[in-house]
Amino acid sequence: MASMLLSRQLTCCLQQNSRLLVFGHRYISQAAAKIDVDFDYDGPLMKTEVPGPRSRELMKKLNGIQNAEAVHFFCNYEESRGNYLVDVDGNRMLDLYSQISSIPIGYSHPSLIKLLQQPQNLSTFINRPALGILPPENFTEKLKESLLSVAPKGLSQVITMSCGSCSNENAFKTIFMWYRNKERGHNNVTKEELESCMINQPPGCPDYAMLSFMGAFHGRTLGCLATTHSKAIHKLDIPSLDWPIAPFPRLKYPLEDFVKENQQEEARCLEEVEDLIVKYRKKKKIVAGIIVEPIQSEGGDNHASDDFFRKLRDIARKHGCAFLVDEVQTGGGCTGKFWAHEHWGLDDPADVVTFSKKMMTGGFFHKEEFRPNAPYRIFNTWLGDPSKNLMLAEVIKVIKTEDLLNNATHAGKALLTGLLDLQARYPHLISRVRGRGTFCSFDTPNDATRNKLITIARNKGVVLGGCGDRSIRFRPTLIFKDHHAHLFLNIFSDILANFK
Amino acid sequence: MASMLLSRQLTCCLQQNSRLLVFGHRYISQAAAKIDVDFDYDGPLMKTEVPGPRSRELMKKLNGIQNAEAVHFFCNYEESRGNYLVDVDGNRMLDLYSQISSIPIGYSHPSLIKLLQQPQNLSTFINRPALGILPPENFTEKLKESLLSVAPKGLSQVITMSCGSCSNENAFKTIFMWYRNKERGHNNVTKEELESCMINQPPGCPDYAMLSFMGAFHGRTLGCLATTHSKAIHKLDIPSLDWPIAPFPRLKYPLEDFVKENQQEEARCLEEVEDLIVKYRKKKKIVAGIIVEPIQSEGGDNHASDDFFRKLRDIARKHGCAFLVDEVQTGGGCTGKFWAHEHWGLDDPADVVTFSKKMMTGGFFHKEEFRPNAPYRIFNTWLGDPSKNLMLAEVIKVIKTEDLLNNATHAGKALLTGLLDLQARYPHLISRVRGRGTFCSFDTPNDATRNKLITIARNKGVVLGGCGDRSIRFRPTLIFKDHHAHLFLNIFSDILANFK
Repeated sequence: MASMLLSRQLTCCLQQNSRLLVFGHRYISQAAAKIDVDFDYDGPLMKTEVPGPRSRELMKKLNGIQNAEAVHFFCNYEESRGNYLVDVDGNRMLDLYSQISSIPIGYSHPSLIKLLQQPQNLSTFINRPALGILPPENFTEKLKESLLSVAPKGLSQVITMSCGSCSNENAFKTIFMWYRNKERGHNNVTKEELESCMINQPPGCPDYAMLSFMGAFHGRTLGCLATTHSKAIHKLDIPSLDWPIAPFPRLKYPLEDFVKENQQEEARCLEEVEDLIVKYRKKKKIVAGIIVEPIQSEGGDNHASDDFFRKLRDIARKHGCAFLVDEVQTGGGCTGKFWAHEHWGLDDPADVVTFSKKMMTGGFFHKEEFRPNAPYRIFNTWLGDPSKNLMLAEVIKVIKTEDLLNNATHAGKALLTGLLDLQARYPHLISRVRGRGTFCSFDTPNDATRNKLITIARNKGVVLGGCGDRSIRFRPTLIFKDHHAHLFLNIFSDILANFK
Repeated sequence: MASMLLSRQLTCCLQQNSRLLVFGHRYISQAAAKIDVDFDYDGPLMKTEVPGPRSRELMKKLNGIQNAEAVHFFCNYEESRGNYLVDVDGNRMLDLYSQISSIPIGYSHPSLIKLLQQPQNLSTFINRPALGILPPENFTEKLKESLLSVAPKGLSQVITMSCGSCSNENAFKTIFMWYRNKERGHNNVTKEELESCMINQPPGCPDYAMLSFMGAFHGRTLGCLATTHSKAIHKLDIPSLDWPIAPFPRLKYPLEDFVKENQQEEARCLEEVEDLIVKYRKKKKIVAGIIVEPIQSEGGDNHASDDFFRKLRDIARKHGCAFLVDEVQTGGGCTGKFWAHEHWGLDDPADVVTFSKKMMTGGFFHKEEFRPNAPYRIFNTWLGDPSKNLMLAEVIKVIKTEDLLNNATHAGKALLTGLLDLQARYPHLISRVRGRGTFCSFDTPNDATRNKLITIARNKGVVLGGCGDRSIRFRPTLIFKDHHAHLFLNIFSDILANFK
């Protein structure tokens, strides 16, 4: 993250190398470019270094009113289309990061433009209701057309929220209430509970915990942050909670060469999960739930086997803990299934599944058993935004009509195959190539090399994102096709060949 | 809150009294109705009891996918205009609650419709960026036109968030980082801090606290919830933090009759604030900041004098704590100033001011001194939503052009004067009438009477909201005029006269 600062410094250095930058797109391979999505561009087109002069001017202005050092460049979203992001200096880049994985079907999709142009939809955008008390007439219908039409098996209930952190925070609360009701049985809430909760004390505020994994990212509000362990910059100086943190498997690649080692590594982590649950219960801190990402994204695209997750689900059940799967980044179809955890083949579904980003609205699905037993327990003013639900219904229609889950599998295979080929050719630069669908990544030797590669790629017309301490992650939209993969691979192959 | 359930039960009882309900709007006084906002309706129009048959049908459907017991009724937002909310059964009600105080300039405002119809704005609604890394070209400009044009004096910095809870959570984090940097001086972050923060332990995660007030409401995510103490239903079963909670003054009304008692009450509370800061520091828990609402809203519309807040600000400074004013509900102009705390006449501005609701986007202003010292420390994927900033710029233009702050003062005076008159006539039903601008409220004898009054009013065409355990709060839009106040007062006077 702080790496992006470095990226900009690198960009400055690169400016001195005018061959690389100033002559438009002459270094960009157009070999694989092809238009099959009618609103997509046919390839990158570079006019300046990135950030260019106009971006730099705007960054300076923004920096006057907030710390703008994380800004990569300023964008012209009106001109951005499909897989291509256009910046304010007229540079057009193939976007494989898609706003930290949050653009589902590309920029300026014709279906969404049409939706916005329909007069009957106007009201949804300008009259934002308090959904929990005064929902619009089509609220349930839009939830059924959108979120519930893709609900993970066994999860019939859904609640919307405004962002990913709020989704996880409210999922935690749902789990804590469920756990306490289980403990309480059919007994009524006591006067002592009602009084003590008002001053943050037990028994009203019980000493419950969520178990999380080292390397996880579940958001940045205080509850979420207590389960986030990906980078120090997220957590430094913020008070936290003593909640258990288990190791997440660190798999060796290529997987087929390390079957036994990886099995042992996963077994070690699972054992530690059980030990922590027992250990924390001994000190009267009850693990009410376990939260896990199907692929640790921000933490470095760390994968584990389907078997690992099935066993983790079993451990949760065995110890009476809720099993919460955070699909904020993995959800929405990019792994080839709508939810990444559908690859696991669980017998017993996850208890709670959170989402945001590509789903355009935050929120979570849960089993009926986890339903709050009274109104206003899971509540806030907005509870999401019906204008996002409206757009999501359209997005999901496009995903189904255009068979975009199979596309993610297909295009992901093209990307992964190409990356494996590059890994074979440039093993000193690329290692641990991994992925599911288009949700791919690889490691570089170190932070500096990673950031340099990202900067060079950007100046050659490809937007990439980093994760972990040395990985590059691919988070294209769902309309990323095989030919986009080939286009990227050609460009990146040139970069690697010339990398010094 | 759980009171709304009761409201519905009451509605069922009321159904039996057909005189009250089935003959349309014959019991609604039209005396004061007048159109001076061209898109506003000219009065309530009731066709069924509320919730009506269509609302009940939709509530049942929604309840299949989530707990829908908090729903009052379903709305037809397309038909809702100005100060009037139309439900799915064709009932048109004067809305004095405005979606829990979150609709700034009324439903379907022509300026916002026009904004949505401009083709150049389409992109802002369908291409939602990750604002912290890839902002749109007009990002700074829209922030200047909107939020910064009404920034509290002395607060030059602004960061947007998606909702009120995220705003307070990130304000806390900003304060914790500021405090730690102050303690750290010019020393670098230690390796021990970087390592310990990853596992939620000090010194990386220091034992810092926010001091809050009993009766406060600052949101429902775990950090915010540790400072919220308004109702048990918000907090029950959720683990919390041992942070200090001071008493908030409980003023006696009418204020002019209890000058000395109220001064003593405020002095007692302020003394307790100082005692708590010292007491918590002794046990190594540092109070890094104090959070307070200018008027405790959810907790029962509890006011304190301007002098109380000036002294609180002084205490914060004296003890080196940040002073955070939560204007999520009070902000946006309804008290007659853009920010309620501007009434206090502080010498030294608040350090941080949070907002959401009527501002359409969440976020916070802060002094330059509180600026994060590195990128990505205050960060998330969306960091608000530029489509909300675009609408807010338009809303603020309307507020200025139509002089809506002075309108809030004027219409608020009409409302408060009328309430005081009703209090004089019905002292057994109405007490402690209080308010600033249109941000008015009164107490009823008990929860049951309050809820009954709200239900009767709704069936006579007026939407009211409750707060605290027995209060009714007024939260109209900023286009609520004197004649709306008179219309309400006529209707409510009839209700009180006939109340049994």
